[in-house]
Amino acid sequence: MSGNIKVTIWNEYRHEKQHDEVASVYPEGIHKAIGAGLGTDRFDVSYAVLDDPEHGLTEEVLNRTDVLVWWGHMAHGEVQDEIVERVHNRVLRGMGLIVLHSGHFSKIFKKLMGTSCDLKWREANEKERIWVVKPGHPIVDGIGEYIELPAEEMYGEHFDIPEPDELVMVSWFEGGEVFRSGCCYSRGMGKIFYFRPGHETFPTYYNPQIRKVISNAIEWAAPVKRDYPRYGHAVPSIEPIKGKS
Amino acid sequence: MSGNIKVTIWNEYRHEKQHDEVASVYPEGIHKAIGAGLGTDRFDVSYAVLDDPEHGLTEEVLNRTDVLVWWGHMAHGEVQDEIVERVHNRVLRGMGLIVLHSGHFSKIFKKLMGTSCDLKWREANEKERIWVVKPGHPIVDGIGEYIELPAEEMYGEHFDIPEPDELVMVSWFEGGEVFRSGCCYSRGMGKIFYFRPGHETFPTYYNPQIRKVISNAIEWAAPVKRDYPRYGHAVPSIEPIKGKS
Amino acid sequence: MSGNIKVTIWNEYRHEKQHDEVASVYPEGIHKAIGAGLGTDRFDVSYAVLDDPEHGLTEEVLNRTDVLVWWGHMAHGEVQDEIVERVHNRVLRGMGLIVLHSGHFSKIFKKLMGTSCDLKWREANEKERIWVVKPGHPIVDGIGEYIELPAEEMYGEHFDIPEPDELVMVSWFEGGEVFRSGCCYSRGMGKIFYFRPGHETFPTYYNPQIRKVISNAIEWAAPVKRDYPRYGHAVPSIEPIKGKS
Amino acid sequence: MSGNIKVTIWNEYRHEKQHDEVASVYPEGIHKAIGAGLGTDRFDVSYAVLDDPEHGLTEEVLNRTDVLVWWGHMAHGEVQDEIVERVHNRVLRGMGLIVLHSGHFSKIFKKLMGTSCDLKWREANEKERIWVVKPGHPIVDGIGEYIELPAEEMYGEHFDIPEPDELVMVSWFEGGEVFRSGCCYSRGMGKIFYFRPGHETFPTYYNPQIRKVISNAIEWAAPVKRDYPRYGHAVPSIEPIKGKS
Repeated sequence: MSGNIKVTIWNEYRHEKQHDEVASVYPEGIHKAIGAGLGTDRFDVSYAVLDDPEHGLTEEVLNRTDVLVWWGHMAHGEVQDEIVERVHNRVLRGMGLIVLHSGHFSKIFKKLMGTSCDLKWREANEKERIWVVKPGHPIVDGIGEYIELPAEEMYGEHFDIPEPDELVMVSWFEGGEVFRSGCCYSRGMGKIFYFRPGHETFPTYYNPQIRKVISNAIEWAAPVKRDYPRYGHAVPSIEPIKGKS
Repeated sequence: MSGNIKVTIWNEYRHEKQHDEVASVYPEGIHKAIGAGLGTDRFDVSYAVLDDPEHGLTEEVLNRTDVLVWWGHMAHGEVQDEIVERVHNRVLRGMGLIVLHSGHFSKIFKKLMGTSCDLKWREANEKERIWVVKPGHPIVDGIGEYIELPAEEMYGEHFDIPEPDELVMVSWFEGGEVFRSGCCYSRGMGKIFYFRPGHETFPTYYNPQIRKVISNAIEWAAPVKRDYPRYGHAVPSIEPIKGKS
Repeated sequence: MSGNIKVTIWNEYRHEKQHDEVASVYPEGIHKAIGAGLGTDRFDVSYAVLDDPEHGLTEEVLNRTDVLVWWGHMAHGEVQDEIVERVHNRVLRGMGLIVLHSGHFSKIFKKLMGTSCDLKWREANEKERIWVVKPGHPIVDGIGEYIELPAEEMYGEHFDIPEPDELVMVSWFEGGEVFRSGCCYSRGMGKIFYFRPGHETFPTYYNPQIRKVISNAIEWAAPVKRDYPRYGHAVPSIEPIKGKS
Repeated sequence: MSGNIKVTIWNEYRHEKQHDEVASVYPEGIHKAIGAGLGTDRFDVSYAVLDDPEHGLTEEVLNRTDVLVWWGHMAHGEVQDEIVERVHNRVLRGMGLIVLHSGHFSKIFKKLMGTSCDLKWREANEKERIWVVKPGHPIVDGIGEYIELPAEEMYGEHFDIPEPDELVMVSWFEGGEVFRSGCCYSRGMGKIFYFRPGHETFPTYYNPQIRKVISNAIEWAAPVKRDYPRYGHAVPSIEPIKGKS
């Protein structure tokens, strides 16, 4: 048994099968491109897609997953609520979650954030610069001052998320917008990272700097080894309570 | 038309009708005791309870409410999901929300937090000291170093909430626990304050310092005057995008 | 005696006297332009400048100041350390502080932040868009989705500040940079707001939206009414400590 | 060359030489007890004390240090300002800093925080319970719901620090106080962790759970591999600036 982090990469996997433009960029699916970027030295990578039974996210799969990566877009509504509950439950118990790009509108991200997760968008092949604003954070280990993508979909503020626990990156777009692109949260024992780039028509997930951010984020989000907190009725722990009989 | 803040105090209002012990403390209901503590100088106060039609939270009521105060405990499950959606929608559009004590387990608080909101608890008539840890915050204007309650229900960590945007108060309990008792959040345009004390068998909501915190929190949570952000497709705002034809 | 907020606007007031270009924009000094934008309804405004005795910041002036506004640039080093200590002391005791533009490099801001407060800059008459990222915050009451300034000095990330307690605004610059432009902090009982725009050669402080942000910030930063915390040796407050003789 | 984290443990090392009571608990000094708790598997440990030349913190020592641990109490004022500047400079460039117990009043911690760092204290051999409030944080990996110390010096709120970026632990004291005991910050590229326990007359640094927290904190605070940001004048990065000639 390796000490590697067990990663499950979940992809909706519809654009690639329905749109030639996307298939030409990601012939094996976005999930496989992301997985190829992680390497096998520190990660044991598995895949799951929407059309698998239970979306590939059985109890057994989730229980052995340290960090789940999520890409979805056109079929958020097809993800069953029961599976969303299951993933949510696992995040609270420590499983890390990396939400990519259009996953901002996934059921699981909205449930964890408590907000609409809405934003502005525009498809105009704009230049994006993702600036690092927290230079000592482990998620930007090995990353330069900014990552430049020559063409991406624009996402603009206001992005309706809770203020991040840690804001690591902010994007600049050619057309005049900014966006909080790298956002850290904790929910229960789980750590969550939202990372903006990755529209399906661009080769973003082949970019070495983008791949480095995703692998850093997975390491950051890996669970700690602790028991789940005990909740509910607590017997008095310091007895007797002073002054009470 | 006054410039006062429009406050709606929502109470489950069941304990008071079912348990003599509670009725003896709050004969007109917890909501009326909270409302009496606010005064009429700066607040226009209305009331709504679970057994009102639509739980008293019609679109019309919510649209004219600046800040909603919420107390519930034994009947969280009877609050209709449709009303929870309605309140959630109003919070994102700017309505303030003050969640009291056992309201930590209300549907609306859990939906806004994205976590289980679980905690430890014990009913042992323990002394509670609520220490101020953010001394310049407007919610503790006029409050001493701590508020001491001679007997309260204990709530203990871990409290399964997102890390507060601002942590204003922390409770000490005689039996050995601590608790993050005054927690500020923003969600969309809405501000949310969770305030721990207020078990139904104790006269907590008659305490002048507790009343001061609640009225401060309502003022803090009052909405700003701004349009709701525009989301969705954005036309290019700086034209033409440089280098694109 | 009015219930107005007592504001002292401090300006280095050197550029205006030495550079015709600046004098033509701010003939009475940047401080007077800022003060004119506040109005007299809610604020009692005083002024202090570097070349006043004690820089105009005597104990008496500071003790009656609720919120201090700070603009400085070319003469940060001439501000005496003793006065910096005095201002610092007052901030910890509750005085609000609004630091504008090049004030990022003032001694008082660096002392309160604990970092270098360094940044990137460029004078190229660039368009700036200051986007609101926290839409329910009182500092952006009455402000649109963004404030557009047709020409400003660029400030770019990385801005070496502690991660803000609340990040309210983020700037976009034509040349490719972003900047955290509206940043809230608390230190002791004092509230601090850093606001980026305001290079001395541009008429930024006549812009009604910029003026609205500054007046909102002053209201947000006004002190609460509480005693300063007691520090040092604490007598046992719950006696006797259980199990000790 | 090992891949271990290079740790320098700095101790004032005066109490141990001047007070028999302390010497009997820490005969080789607090620093050596802390170092013994780290083990050698993942850490290369060095020591430095106040009475060493340059307090043992030469440029050469600091440049090779990944994480500096700091214990001081009775002689904060003897630490030379020049050395404080040097340590500060290294923290901004990425060196981690773990500040223990009475180090809250050290020059370096106050400089990094920007506040008085004052607090309440009492020496009454009180029971302390350090509760975990952020259960998924790497600093509490392997730690139970709380750490109980049978006797410690009390530190109580208000603790005059900036609100922590992440609050990991909160202490309960028998005498009625609470304290934010495990506090994470970032300053520049450096990560800082303040950890409360460790009065010189108690064997706290032999406690396995305390040792585990310190070793976790060192791993958390280790620097990332990135160039220090470039500050100052920035040439236009996207040329020519649109609409400018």
